Amino acid sequence: MKVGLYQGSGTPLDVTANLELLAHTTATAAKQNVTLLIFPELFLTGYNIGDDVKRLAEPWRGRSLQLAAEIAREHHVALLFGYAERDGGAIYNAAALIEADGTLAANYRKVHLFGAEEQRLFTPGRDWGLHTIAGVRVGILICYDVEFPEAVRALALRGAELIAVPTALMFPYTQIPRVLIPTRALENQVFVAYANRIGTEGHLKYCGLSTIADPDGKVLAQAGAEETLLIADLDRTAIAQTRAVFSYLDDRCPHLYD
Amino acid sequence: MKVGLYQGSGTPLDVTANLELLAHTTATAAKQNVTLLIFPELFLTGYNIGDDVKRLAEPWRGRSLQLAAEIAREHHVALLFGYAERDGGAIYNAAALIEADGTLAANYRKVHLFGAEEQRLFTPGRDWGLHTIAGVRVGILICYDVEFPEAVRALALRGAELIAVPTALMFPYTQIPRVLIPTRALENQVFVAYANRIGTEGHLKYCGLSTIADPDGKVLAQAGAEETLLIADLDRTAIAQTRAVFSYLDDRCPHLYD
Repeated sequence: MKVGLYQGSGTPLDVTANLELLAHTTATAAKQNVTLLIFPELFLTGYNIGDDVKRLAEPWRGRSLQLAAEIAREHHVALLFGYAERDGGAIYNAAALIEADGTLAANYRKVHLFGAEEQRLFTPGRDWGLHTIAGVRVGILICYDVEFPEAVRALALRGAELIAVPTALMFPYTQIPRVLIPTRALENQVFVAYANRIGTEGHLKYCGLSTIADPDGKVLAQAGAEETLLIADLDRTAIAQTRAVFSYLDDRCPHLYD
Repeated sequence: MKVGLYQGSGTPLDVTANLELLAHTTATAAKQNVTLLIFPELFLTGYNIGDDVKRLAEPWRGRSLQLAAEIAREHHVALLFGYAERDGGAIYNAAALIEADGTLAANYRKVHLFGAEEQRLFTPGRDWGLHTIAGVRVGILICYDVEFPEAVRALALRGAELIAVPTALMFPYTQIPRVLIPTRALENQVFVAYANRIGTEGHLKYCGLSTIADPDGKVLAQAGAEETLLIADLDRTAIAQTRAVFSYLDDRCPHLYD
């Protein structure tokens, strides 16, 4: 599987412009044979937009999701992107996974909300998101989720081979892509793809450093602070190879864990 | 608290020589006001010594432990070191924590045994090790243990402020000190001190890189491949400071973890 990460800032508050950017980037990725293209957290609306996120939130299977499904189908690329989801009176910080044929395949709602502002705006998710894309079992997390080893472990124990993470990570937290993302890959012997924002929104300055790590904890690709399409070829047989030497999942001692 | 890590190879199979090295290093550390001095895994016997580890194993409170207690008391330095423990018919890969007044304070038996050779020689431990040294709550793990996020989390949830880890890490696993150790510190907002071997024993070549990381995941000190006494000053108020911004322990969602 060829995975692509779009690192950029989009246009906060302008969903139409962000859908155009989604289409343009997907066309570019298709030319490079990307199988799964991952965008940052709350890509369709912007991340740090306060109460406007409620106004711009849309249902799973709503108009923007249908437009994104058309983009996926037209270019035959699976897409994962962050969006603000409205479901009745609740607003979720969500990520939509759409198959290359345009099927709306999985809707993940962020479980671990970061800080007072997210906790004020969003309802936390109550379940993990997993779906198979091109034969690879993909687990979905959003930003702060991946900083909890328990979240990645839960997905790995359910068979995830790639953890795909839309994010909006700001300074000064550069240790997350530098050490924590490779560690999540290493300690679960899975691939991790972490797609971040760049630029500033209000008082937040995002740190880029979008990262793809392999099941040995090696960084296959890492961006700087520029707008970019980061691509890496993931060979899922690497998971079985490294687990044949020793397997963290097999060597766990769960009777001693809380 | 000033923590010291002895990185070296000792003399495999020569317990007397290793106790002399323990005494010599403790005297050096005392002159630099070290509070807690940490030695590598199976420091008293050597790590890769096959069945000889059974012959050289001694009881907790046995002769070598009494001699180590005298060294701690003489120099007024708390000590943590790996040794082979005999208890009835069982042999454990253990670590002894001795207070600065010579009290044998905590005996930890490695829970996660690495590979067929360790599993053949040792009985796994069945409990965590925690003890307060100079006002700092110290959790003990040995080598492979720390690679499991659940082990460090269990200690952090029990109040550990410093995770102290005697280890015997070989090539090619340099990603452990480079990314996983800082991540363990970061994701639990605790200090981690990881004391490794150097040199070769049989077919194993140890990689050094002994590391001390702080509650923000920053590396306070990291060795190369040389024999060294690595020292860092740990300010436990840094834990409360970083957790005041956000707290991973408070933000966990255990109802969704396996």
